[in-house]
Amino acid sequence: MAKILVVYASDYGNTEKMANAVAAGVRSVATGEAVVRKAEEVTADDITASDGIVFGSPVHMGSMDWRVKKMIDTVCSGLWMQNLVVGKVGGVFATGSGFGGAGGGAELTLLSMLNNLVELGLIVVPLPKNTPGYPKGGMQWGPYGRSADENLQPVGVSDDALAVARLHGANIARAADAIRGKEIFAV
Amino acid sequence: MAKILVVYASDYGNTEKMANAVAAGVRSVATGEAVVRKAEEVTADDITASDGIVFGSPVHMGSMDWRVKKMIDTVCSGLWMQNLVVGKVGGVFATGSGFGGAGGGAELTLLSMLNNLVELGLIVVPLPKNTPGYPKGGMQWGPYGRSADENLQPVGVSDDALAVARLHGANIARAADAIRGKEIFAV
Amino acid sequence: MAKILVVYASDYGNTEKMANAVAAGVRSVATGEAVVRKAEEVTADDITASDGIVFGSPVHMGSMDWRVKKMIDTVCSGLWMQNLVVGKVGGVFATGSGFGGAGGGAELTLLSMLNNLVELGLIVVPLPKNTPGYPKGGMQWGPYGRSADENLQPVGVSDDALAVARLHGANIARAADAIRGKEIFAV
Amino acid sequence: MAKILVVYASDYGNTEKMANAVAAGVRSVATGEAVVRKAEEVTADDITASDGIVFGSPVHMGSMDWRVKKMIDTVCSGLWMQNLVVGKVGGVFATGSGFGGAGGGAELTLLSMLNNLVELGLIVVPLPKNTPGYPKGGMQWGPYGRSADENLQPVGVSDDALAVARLHGANIARAADAIRGKEIFAV
Repeated sequence: MAKILVVYASDYGNTEKMANAVAAGVRSVATGEAVVRKAEEVTADDITASDGIVFGSPVHMGSMDWRVKKMIDTVCSGLWMQNLVVGKVGGVFATGSGFGGAGGGAELTLLSMLNNLVELGLIVVPLPKNTPGYPKGGMQWGPYGRSADENLQPVGVSDDALAVARLHGANIARAADAIRGKEIFAV
Repeated sequence: MAKILVVYASDYGNTEKMANAVAAGVRSVATGEAVVRKAEEVTADDITASDGIVFGSPVHMGSMDWRVKKMIDTVCSGLWMQNLVVGKVGGVFATGSGFGGAGGGAELTLLSMLNNLVELGLIVVPLPKNTPGYPKGGMQWGPYGRSADENLQPVGVSDDALAVARLHGANIARAADAIRGKEIFAV
Repeated sequence: MAKILVVYASDYGNTEKMANAVAAGVRSVATGEAVVRKAEEVTADDITASDGIVFGSPVHMGSMDWRVKKMIDTVCSGLWMQNLVVGKVGGVFATGSGFGGAGGGAELTLLSMLNNLVELGLIVVPLPKNTPGYPKGGMQWGPYGRSADENLQPVGVSDDALAVARLHGANIARAADAIRGKEIFAV
Repeated sequence: MAKILVVYASDYGNTEKMANAVAAGVRSVATGEAVVRKAEEVTADDITASDGIVFGSPVHMGSMDWRVKKMIDTVCSGLWMQNLVVGKVGGVFATGSGFGGAGGGAELTLLSMLNNLVELGLIVVPLPKNTPGYPKGGMQWGPYGRSADENLQPVGVSDDALAVARLHGANIARAADAIRGKEIFAV
């Protein structure tokens, strides 16, 4: 069984849709089990009980939503201090606009979450460019759903982005399956 | 007089067009004088003789073109070691595709160049979001010209991106004018 | 007059000391006026009333403290949307440990705040390497005060780091003086 | 068998020592086989023949050495375009100074290489903080060997950093073993 925890914050429901798509992807794998939690509701037990962790956030001023950061500072720090999640599997996704012709802040938002996963000692699952839907639905760090266009007008996340999110979830479940039970890290 | 050096690498001429647009913007300011150099041709004297420096690059695997990096490693390092460019003004721009729905790598490419400018002690001129053309032509770090679409098909940099590049050049010339001759930094 | 707003979060008082040192540096410049605010207390008026803005944070899991991010998401976003702070001057500083032999997360914490300043359209003041005290007190992005050693044991921020913070404050005040009243950005 | 390719550039031999330590760690695992190559000598065949790839570089002006970048631009781009390395395992390491009290540029150097590995579709192996030697020998992204002190005086990479590099190599070999032959990524 590959138990994957999907944690997110959402303002208008777009990131929540992406979170649910990632979870659906996890469940599409025979061994996959997904738990979806809002950032404000996650507990340390949710995290330690999982084989893999996925963080998702809207792009806010070029980095993750403060509610995701609060969860990291208050729930994850203790787990980091005690090395309680080393060797699990992790991934990230985001939603935002296409403002600036290149979704300004999308890349650094994905990276700001990934940095935390790496600090926790998680093995990181990227989004390969041959993933179906990638051209409009993702970046190297993970799925990116445009919820607004270049002029900041809402458009909702596209089917491509949701499809990519589903495949990302399945990839992460399979990676967790491959890694679980192995002693990867020297201590 | 605000003498601005524009340094770039280019594969298919798109980044070169952007470099020339930045230079045209510099020259649109009464006091502006622009020097445009390929990364392979820049000398330490080109840099020390300038009031401001602009680096531009195509996005290559998520960071600047190796020719720009070689110039930084071989020409700029010595200037850094001797603190010879502290207090000048700097800016960046890039070209790339819209692959991944968000121009994967665009942001980190701009940042990889900006990091070097900051190490040199340059005061950094960003690209404000109310710059005309910004929605399709730039990011917070600087102008970004899409030269290929989401499927990696060549489209050439847009008029919007070139217009933004021109305005960025003018902004940098004005900033150099405001800063030049002032003793900003304590030593 | 160069009115500089220093915004920070602090857990054990180290980042607060750094914030006060930046403010002291601002006031050491004839025209400098400093306002120091905890992240939870800053208002939009504090920001718009300033000529320059400095953000400081402890390193928390490789990026800024959630309270600083909450302030950015809830107070700064509106200013960004309305382009109300474009053309001011900005800078950053941080405190953290030397854990990992290189202060893991220090650089990305400074960058996570700087990214927000750049989004707001602020001209960024770096920390030149010839700043007295730099070898032990700073990075290219700004002052960095080690408050714990390589083994995570508390040591308190050093005099070097505080000296660098004071000089950074003075630099920012002088940059604000040089820029204020100039129309740098095309609109 | 877990065949790991270690690619590096080195100026004074410190990064080479770290590369050899990573390779020794790979070989310490029963199934591990290591190939060590200078960045200028790597071929596409070296990369496709491997189960895992490790990039190492000195910190040069806040990012990887231009020779590593040239290898990425000229050798890896084609592999990226054709999706030929998706699903392998990857990791990074760096050497640099402690200048600035926090090894300015160390984190962004590690990240600049990691970004390329992620673009290639590699599953990333971090450096958990409970790795023996971590306090002085590494960061979340990978081993970091200080080859100069806070005043830029050469000190040579420490035994701690070399020990961490060896463990990182072993971790990567084990991760490659766990992943090899598994179909992780949906296509």
